[in-house]
Amino acid sequence: MGKTVDKAVVLLSGGLDSATTLAMARAAGYACHAISFDYGQRHRCELEAAARVAAQLGAASHRVVSLGLGDLGGSALTDPAIDVPHAPTSGIPVTYVPARNTVFLAVALGCAEVLEAAHLFVGVNAVDYSGYPDCRPAFITAFEALANVATRAGVEGRPFRVHAPLIELTKAEIIRQGHALGVDYGLTVSCYDPDPEGRACGQCDSCRLRAAGFRAAGVADPTIYQ
Amino acid sequence: MGKTVDKAVVLLSGGLDSATTLAMARAAGYACHAISFDYGQRHRCELEAAARVAAQLGAASHRVVSLGLGDLGGSALTDPAIDVPHAPTSGIPVTYVPARNTVFLAVALGCAEVLEAAHLFVGVNAVDYSGYPDCRPAFITAFEALANVATRAGVEGRPFRVHAPLIELTKAEIIRQGHALGVDYGLTVSCYDPDPEGRACGQCDSCRLRAAGFRAAGVADPTIYQ
Repeated sequence: MGKTVDKAVVLLSGGLDSATTLAMARAAGYACHAISFDYGQRHRCELEAAARVAAQLGAASHRVVSLGLGDLGGSALTDPAIDVPHAPTSGIPVTYVPARNTVFLAVALGCAEVLEAAHLFVGVNAVDYSGYPDCRPAFITAFEALANVATRAGVEGRPFRVHAPLIELTKAEIIRQGHALGVDYGLTVSCYDPDPEGRACGQCDSCRLRAAGFRAAGVADPTIYQ
Repeated sequence: MGKTVDKAVVLLSGGLDSATTLAMARAAGYACHAISFDYGQRHRCELEAAARVAAQLGAASHRVVSLGLGDLGGSALTDPAIDVPHAPTSGIPVTYVPARNTVFLAVALGCAEVLEAAHLFVGVNAVDYSGYPDCRPAFITAFEALANVATRAGVEGRPFRVHAPLIELTKAEIIRQGHALGVDYGLTVSCYDPDPEGRACGQCDSCRLRAAGFRAAGVADPTIYQ
């Protein structure tokens, strides 16, 4: 009674959320093809973290696609002229990269077409990152609708599903689930402004959310701080 | 009675369709920021053609964004292992690049956010390229819906419009309109398989459609063939 293993393409940034997403997709039985992006982000350690996480969590493959988004400017994450804030901010943060998740999912969709994978997994999270428009459920729904008119598979009646399993979870819930699934968070990098050795600043929005999440989850925080 | 000039981001491939689209956007009064993609296509002459067309048609700016789509494989346009067909084919062609227009529009959307442009122009055409799922009106509608939930501007009530002015035109109608607007089609490259000097093969799907279009339009064909 052989069962075909469904393929999924999983967006993997090297951070805590995407590592947890990969673990959840694996636990759900998918053969997971991880995809990371070299998009002009300031820190190479994210891509090194993504490779470590893909290996630890048993991804079927891991590829890194280069995207020249840094040339567009407009974000503290890709534009050296914009400082990463080290204190809480309100509204849409300056670390927002214009249309980033739209671009990442679009490339992942192309990858899924080539691999004949019908599932996309993305670790967006509407609770902690409510300032990013492309982390909301409405965005996921709209992208899934687009995928099913944009592609050969969609046109031929093999619809795509876009899974965002973290979207309604708190950071503490994400950490508890990933911890239970064996994610080694010591391999991940979440900081927006790490030092050259990849150690976290402990002060940016992402570091603060991450540290508070470990505290709230009651899980030991393996992050190495500067 | 000063009138603010609206900004548009225009996808410019260096081919006949996108050149005509840029001319139509300029004629409609937009300040046009052209964007081209270096996505692993086999032929550099397309990008040189895009730069010439942007200059001839008075684009406000022209940028080339690198995208590593060639690593995904699956298309004769980026994968040297797949031959470009030199005879008519049916169904979705092997020259289809997976999710290409989705990726291109996504990056153009990020560019529009940075430039604070509310209009995107894309030269897709449902009549001549009916084999490509991402050239249909349903795709444009779905992308516009996505853009308005994915972005800061959409969330803040400044909606994007995605214009596809060629979508219902025949190749002959496109050529007639562009000719009337002063497009120099001698600057454009449409061939899927040009020689190193950029001369057209005259045999691929794209060359055949283009040549037939000039004949049907009653406009002299300035294409240089091998």
